[in-house]
Amino acid sequence: MELTPTMERLIAELVKLPTIGRKSAQRLAFHLLRREHDEALALARAIEDMRARVRFCQRCGNIAETDLCALCSDRSRDRSTLCVVEEVTDVVAFERGGSYRGLYHVLGGCLSPLHGVTPDRLSIEPLMARLREGGVRELIVATNPSVDGEATALYLARLARSLGIRTTRIGVGIPIGSTVEFADQVTVQKALEGRREIEP
Amino acid sequence: MELTPTMERLIAELVKLPTIGRKSAQRLAFHLLRREHDEALALARAIEDMRARVRFCQRCGNIAETDLCALCSDRSRDRSTLCVVEEVTDVVAFERGGSYRGLYHVLGGCLSPLHGVTPDRLSIEPLMARLREGGVRELIVATNPSVDGEATALYLARLARSLGIRTTRIGVGIPIGSTVEFADQVTVQKALEGRREIEP
Repeated sequence: MELTPTMERLIAELVKLPTIGRKSAQRLAFHLLRREHDEALALARAIEDMRARVRFCQRCGNIAETDLCALCSDRSRDRSTLCVVEEVTDVVAFERGGSYRGLYHVLGGCLSPLHGVTPDRLSIEPLMARLREGGVRELIVATNPSVDGEATALYLARLARSLGIRTTRIGVGIPIGSTVEFADQVTVQKALEGRREIEP
Repeated sequence: MELTPTMERLIAELVKLPTIGRKSAQRLAFHLLRREHDEALALARAIEDMRARVRFCQRCGNIAETDLCALCSDRSRDRSTLCVVEEVTDVVAFERGGSYRGLYHVLGGCLSPLHGVTPDRLSIEPLMARLREGGVRELIVATNPSVDGEATALYLARLARSLGIRTTRIGVGIPIGSTVEFADQVTVQKALEGRREIEP
């Protein structure tokens, strides 16, 4: 059965969202229909406002509503440490961790020659410009532990070395709360390679 | 970490949707941020248009964009059979089935004295008005097979009998494609009670 035209259009737009299938979209559309008029419109307004106001930090690429993001504007952050991540959502993940006090640089992905992602498609030149300005003592490369992420880390480490900047890679291994039993073989191998001395 | 204010507001609105938690909402918000500007606004417009245009059929309570819904306006539907359902989504389910050619009546829920749902809170008086107009020969009660749904079915059957209209209840039992093994004990019991002669 076809629902009414505007209902079908709403469902078609909802289906374009990740992880939302036809059935979920229909449930969401009926939910928006049953809600108070103002409540349903609040979602529409929130989408419009977000698109009107959110932009990317001119310095690090994180999301912002002014030229610089909240982190780059925060004078209490440690400017000598820079953590390079693939996406803005990775910044969110590290900030959730809560202990990192340095700044970030969002690449916008990782190098992937097979998918046409060459260095000029990523925010690598702006990163180099930041490093050339001086003041950064450690570059932490936090790209994902995938083939492309590792290649990107190596590429960035070479560039940073040419500027005499120490480059580190985030640790890989068994996630806290998970078990060795359920880790895949590559993770187990990497966890072994990344073993550290226990100081008793 | 707090994202930007408008991003947080969008996430807060998305979290109000059913089955959308904070993580999903964040993923959806970033998806809407990454999409082309017009594509993201298309969803906002679709919500606004749906709320501006969708209303309920004055006759059966199904969703509509005119006074009468597409089904009530369809002269080829069988006007002598009326299927009573709890919600509009149930109309969608029966229409998906594809074989029913009669009309519907959406109650807007089912009787539930414990939750304060008395007959006047449902579209029962409008249903009686339709029955009194004449022409309906069979009332099929398709409320859910719950305690409240069964009580509602009995209530409606008594009202319809007072008008001399035959009332039937939809079948309950093992769903097609499922197995007896996985059916709960009430369903198995109802499936036994609802057994029919096999005509060899």
